[in-house]
Amino acid sequence: MTKPLAGITILDLTHVLAGPFCSMTLADLGARVIKVERPGSGDDTRAFPPFSKGKSAYFAAINHGKKSIALDLKSDTDRAVFERLLPHADVILENYRPGVMERLGYGWEDLHAMYPRLIYGAVSGFGHTGPDAKRPAYDMVVQGRGGVMSITGEKGREPVRVGASIGDIVAGMYLSQGVLAALMDRERNGKGRKVDVAMLDAQLAILEHAIAITSVTGTPPVPTGARHPSIAPFETFHASDGLFVIAAGNDVLFEKLCVALNLPLSDDPRFATNPARVENTRLLKRLIEAVTLDKTRAYWIARLGAAGIPSGPIQDVAQVMRDPQIVARNMVVDVLDRNGRPAFKAAGNPIKMSGLGDPTVRPAAPDLDGDRGEILRWLEGKG
Amino acid sequence: MTKPLAGITILDLTHVLAGPFCSMTLADLGARVIKVERPGSGDDTRAFPPFSKGKSAYFAAINHGKKSIALDLKSDTDRAVFERLLPHADVILENYRPGVMERLGYGWEDLHAMYPRLIYGAVSGFGHTGPDAKRPAYDMVVQGRGGVMSITGEKGREPVRVGASIGDIVAGMYLSQGVLAALMDRERNGKGRKVDVAMLDAQLAILEHAIAITSVTGTPPVPTGARHPSIAPFETFHASDGLFVIAAGNDVLFEKLCVALNLPLSDDPRFATNPARVENTRLLKRLIEAVTLDKTRAYWIARLGAAGIPSGPIQDVAQVMRDPQIVARNMVVDVLDRNGRPAFKAAGNPIKMSGLGDPTVRPAAPDLDGDRGEILRWLEGKG
Repeated sequence: MTKPLAGITILDLTHVLAGPFCSMTLADLGARVIKVERPGSGDDTRAFPPFSKGKSAYFAAINHGKKSIALDLKSDTDRAVFERLLPHADVILENYRPGVMERLGYGWEDLHAMYPRLIYGAVSGFGHTGPDAKRPAYDMVVQGRGGVMSITGEKGREPVRVGASIGDIVAGMYLSQGVLAALMDRERNGKGRKVDVAMLDAQLAILEHAIAITSVTGTPPVPTGARHPSIAPFETFHASDGLFVIAAGNDVLFEKLCVALNLPLSDDPRFATNPARVENTRLLKRLIEAVTLDKTRAYWIARLGAAGIPSGPIQDVAQVMRDPQIVARNMVVDVLDRNGRPAFKAAGNPIKMSGLGDPTVRPAAPDLDGDRGEILRWLEGKG
Repeated sequence: MTKPLAGITILDLTHVLAGPFCSMTLADLGARVIKVERPGSGDDTRAFPPFSKGKSAYFAAINHGKKSIALDLKSDTDRAVFERLLPHADVILENYRPGVMERLGYGWEDLHAMYPRLIYGAVSGFGHTGPDAKRPAYDMVVQGRGGVMSITGEKGREPVRVGASIGDIVAGMYLSQGVLAALMDRERNGKGRKVDVAMLDAQLAILEHAIAITSVTGTPPVPTGARHPSIAPFETFHASDGLFVIAAGNDVLFEKLCVALNLPLSDDPRFATNPARVENTRLLKRLIEAVTLDKTRAYWIARLGAAGIPSGPIQDVAQVMRDPQIVARNMVVDVLDRNGRPAFKAAGNPIKMSGLGDPTVRPAAPDLDGDRGEILRWLEGKG
C-alpha cells in the first residue's frame, strides 16, 4: 500500500511556521514538497536559533524532506522556471499578505483559470477578507488578539503566551485539513478549490468553553492557572514531592477517585455532580490535597492509574523526549544531515496510519536552492 | 459546487472533546455525522456548564448539526441497529480505550475484513500501541505529561495549563487530517485505512522550538511568560495604559520598528541580528518600553500597523467575539435550538473554501437519541 498522498506535488511558497507546518504534515503523508524560497536568505527560520554546525535546528524540524529552489518571482528568468513548475503542481501554498500573489500574476483567479485542477491554499494573519486583511501578523499578535492569552496564566498576573506558537501551528493544521478535503473532492469532481485560513480565525476556533461561557453569562472567563474552568477535579495537586495531575472528567471517575483516596465525598451534594464540583472546586482541591500531600507523585500516579483514574506527571521537554510511551510511538525522530548522519531531533508524525509506515528518521532539511538541479531535471523528464 | 465532503457518512462513537471536535470539522466540510451515544446520559459534555434553558452550551458548541442515536453496543437489539448502519458508513470514529472495540466485535481487523472501504479513525490518550496504551487520559493529563505546561507560564512559578483544551483539540485536528488523507486516497485505490492518533503524541508534535532547543543544548526550555524564546522582539510591551504585543520576526521588520520608535538600534551589533536580539532581549525590552510607555496602546498599534509592523492588543474573549475582523469573517455563529431560534454562540469554521459556503448559523445540537426515528427511516430508504 502506498502512502495516502503518493504522487501529489505541493509547490510551497510559505515561510516561517504556519505554512511550512502544513506542508510538513502533507510531506509526512507522502506528498512531494517543493519549497520555493526567496534568493539570498531564504526562509526566515534559517536564522532562528538554536544552531548546530551552522544550521538552524528550528528550520530543520519543520522542513525536513522538502526540496528547495530559490526563485525571485519578480525576475523573468525565475518566473519562467516557476511557470514550468505550475502545471505539475497539485497544490500551491502561500502565506503572503493578500494581494501579493495577484500582483505577481499568480492569484487564485488567474491560476484557477489556467489550471482548474490546482488547489490553492493560503494562510495569512487575518485572512483574505475583512477590514484587517492586509495587516501583517505573527504568532504573538494572534495569540494576544485572539483571546487565548486572556485565559492562560494566573488570575491577577500579566497574561502569558502559550509556550509553543499555536497561533501558527493551529492555522497550519486548518490549512492542511482544507487542502486535504479539497484533494479528496477533486478526485470526484476534477476541480480545484481555494482554501483561505486566517491565523486569527484559527485562534478563535480553539477557544472551547470560553465562547460558551462568554455567550451564556456575558462575562469573559479569566485565566485559571492549572485548572479547567468547566470540569472538576481537573487540575494539578500537590503530593509530598511536588505537583501532579488528576483529571476525573465524570461522576464515575470521581467516585473511583473518592475510593482510591479514601475520601467519602461522592454522595455529598456539594460534590455529587460535575456542576456542583466546579462550584466548590477550591474546597474540593483542599480536601484532595489533605490526602495527596502524604505520599509522592509516583505513588499517586501508580495508584490512581491502577484504579483507572486519569492522572500523570508534569514533565519538562527532556523528560517527554525520553518518555517510554513517546519512544514506543516513534514520536522523536532523527533528522539526517546531507551525509545521512543524524543531525537534529524532531517531532515524529502523530498521524499513525495503516500503510503509511512510521520511520524514525527523516531526510535532511534542504540547503537554500539545494535542489535546483534535481528539480530542473525532474521537469525535463516531464517534457 | 457541492461541499467537499458531500455524501460522506461518519458513524461517530466519540465523546467529550477530541473526537467530537474532529467530527465537527468534518461536518462543517459537508459530511453527515451520526453521533452514537450511550443510552441514559449520553456524551459527558451534556453535563458540562454553562447551561442555557437546561442545555449545555459546551455540548452545543461542538455537536451542532450532528444526528444522535442512543445505542448500547452490548445489547443485541441495539447491535442489530448499529450493524445496519455500518455498511452505509464511510468513516467510523471512536475514542474508547484500545481493546474495547475489539471486545465489542467492532475492532479494525473485523470491520476492515467486512467493509474494506471503511475508514477507521481512533483517538485515545496514548494511542493503540506502547506500554501505556490502555491508560486513561484527559486533556490535563497530556498537557502535563506532554511538556506544553513546562514551557507555559512564568519562570519560577507553578506551571499553568493552556487555557483551552489543546490536548484534545490538537489530537482531534490530527485525526481529522488522517481521516481526510485516507478519504482522498480511498477515491483512488478503493481501500480504507486505520488512523490511530494519541493525545500525548499530538502534544509532542506541537512543541516547536522546545524540542530543537532540548536536542541542541541538552537543556529543556523553561516558561518565558509572554516572550517567544527564539525570536526578538516578540512579546508584550507596556504602553501608558497597559500591555500590547509587538512581533518583529525578522531584520527588515526590526529596522522598521526602530524607525517607528525613533530608536537607532538596528546597526548596534547587540541588536543587528535575530540571534543577537534574542541574546539581549531583556535590554531590548527595556529600551523599547522607554519609548512605548509614553503613549497609549491604541496609539502604538495604529502607528506600528501603518508602518507594516505586526502588533496588536491583548483581548478578552468578549472583545474577540466583537472584533470587526472576526465578525467580518463569520467566525462567531449562532447555534439554533430545535425551534430554529438562536440559542448559543459558537466558533465558526476557520476553513474558508470556495464552493463550501460560510453560513452564520448552525443547526441545533441533537437531543440524546433525538434522531433515532429519522436515522431508522433513512436506513429503510437504503433498503
